[in-house]
Amino acid sequence: MNTKPLILVSNDDGITAPGIKALVERMQLLGEVVVVAPDSPQSGMGHAITINHPLRLVKSDYFGDDVLAYQCSGTPADCVKLALDKVLPRRPDLLVSGINHGSNSSINVIYSGTMSAAMEGAIDGLQAIGFSLLDYSMEADFSTAAEVVTRVATEVLDKGLPTDCLLNVNIPNVPLSELKGIKICRQAKAKWVEEFDQRDDPYNRKYFWLTGKFVNMDKGEDTDEWALQNGYASVVPVQFDLTAHHAIGILNNWKLNA
Amino acid sequence: MNTKPLILVSNDDGITAPGIKALVERMQLLGEVVVVAPDSPQSGMGHAITINHPLRLVKSDYFGDDVLAYQCSGTPADCVKLALDKVLPRRPDLLVSGINHGSNSSINVIYSGTMSAAMEGAIDGLQAIGFSLLDYSMEADFSTAAEVVTRVATEVLDKGLPTDCLLNVNIPNVPLSELKGIKICRQAKAKWVEEFDQRDDPYNRKYFWLTGKFVNMDKGEDTDEWALQNGYASVVPVQFDLTAHHAIGILNNWKLNA
Repeated sequence: MNTKPLILVSNDDGITAPGIKALVERMQLLGEVVVVAPDSPQSGMGHAITINHPLRLVKSDYFGDDVLAYQCSGTPADCVKLALDKVLPRRPDLLVSGINHGSNSSINVIYSGTMSAAMEGAIDGLQAIGFSLLDYSMEADFSTAAEVVTRVATEVLDKGLPTDCLLNVNIPNVPLSELKGIKICRQAKAKWVEEFDQRDDPYNRKYFWLTGKFVNMDKGEDTDEWALQNGYASVVPVQFDLTAHHAIGILNNWKLNA
Repeated sequence: MNTKPLILVSNDDGITAPGIKALVERMQLLGEVVVVAPDSPQSGMGHAITINHPLRLVKSDYFGDDVLAYQCSGTPADCVKLALDKVLPRRPDLLVSGINHGSNSSINVIYSGTMSAAMEGAIDGLQAIGFSLLDYSMEADFSTAAEVVTRVATEVLDKGLPTDCLLNVNIPNVPLSELKGIKICRQAKAKWVEEFDQRDDPYNRKYFWLTGKFVNMDKGEDTDEWALQNGYASVVPVQFDLTAHHAIGILNNWKLNA
């Protein structure tokens, strides 16, 4: 009988990003690992899926002989869908996504390809976790993040997540000795204020680069932003029922059927 | 003093789709209309944003002289960000997205470009509504949907939405005389079960088309799926705080800091 957990790994920075390598190494200590990840960076892809062109799936030896790995031409959500339907020998016991190069805290969860891979699995009923390190650099040090990954993934495999939720784990860019701990949080209320960078091309046509300023409007000490700013790794349970239940009573008093 | 509401219109099927034309016509009865919409179809784009290449914005006369309109090379979320930063003369009183060709009920809200445009506005504090008709065809009849659009948008302009929520409005494909009414609902618990269509290209390389079967796991009569199947238009209030608040207590009993 095979009792080793089967673990699916994906990400949004692409199969050759250092972050997914660090994640695979830690997952190999916990179970049998299968990777299906994008063949190119997919940051900011949100929960995009590919319906207007076909997908390619190419075997990869990037992680050595012990890891069955494929690179996929699609988005992170596509990778998970293809893995479940075409690659995995059975339902995985855990799906992990990342380790993302850069934060997916607070409102960034909405735009995150890393989290969309995890959410795609959670919608299908899998235990799923997205991991992100607060360092955009390709030379980022993933050693602290790797410790957090092991602790959180071990606990999820042991206890099982509450129904209909996945975890959004963000790790501050500090040495392990300076990490204050791992904190359960809620998503901070924050937004990006756009500041498009407008330029002219050599043919005098305008174009725009998306840039912006992150604005945290939330002073709560139970938020992911507070935890990260104070040296903790943040763990936010995330749901895919987007219903604003608090609004239903109010809307029922409206006269929509006059 | 200008008291006419300023209304921003976007979509994900692209600026030339019949659905956005129907929406613009109705909005012109309620206020001053500005359109910023994708220059090509963006269905399934989720909450994607464009960070790896620049964006183009080109003026369009598609809606006649009374409507300031631009087509944008980006995603629906990009369109709203650009509109707010570069196009609109002031903060709009309402943002509407659609009318989508096809359903965005239940779990489809996660994958929906239509809803991502509305959500982008809501995150920024705007009153925002996404509209979808349950008919994928480009020859769809938008007359029933247009009535629902007017009723819902009028009520939102009059009453204002509850804090931190937007509306996901879906309209069944029935004549107005058969529409039972407009019903406030919660998002049905449902998912897509993937069934990739695997083919070989002329060079004997495999490729995959994403297809799937929609599975509704929710028997509740307060869901959007129930409403639509029973002849009602569904209105689901949607939030962008994805925290699974019910899970926080459970997770706080875990031993993550052993």
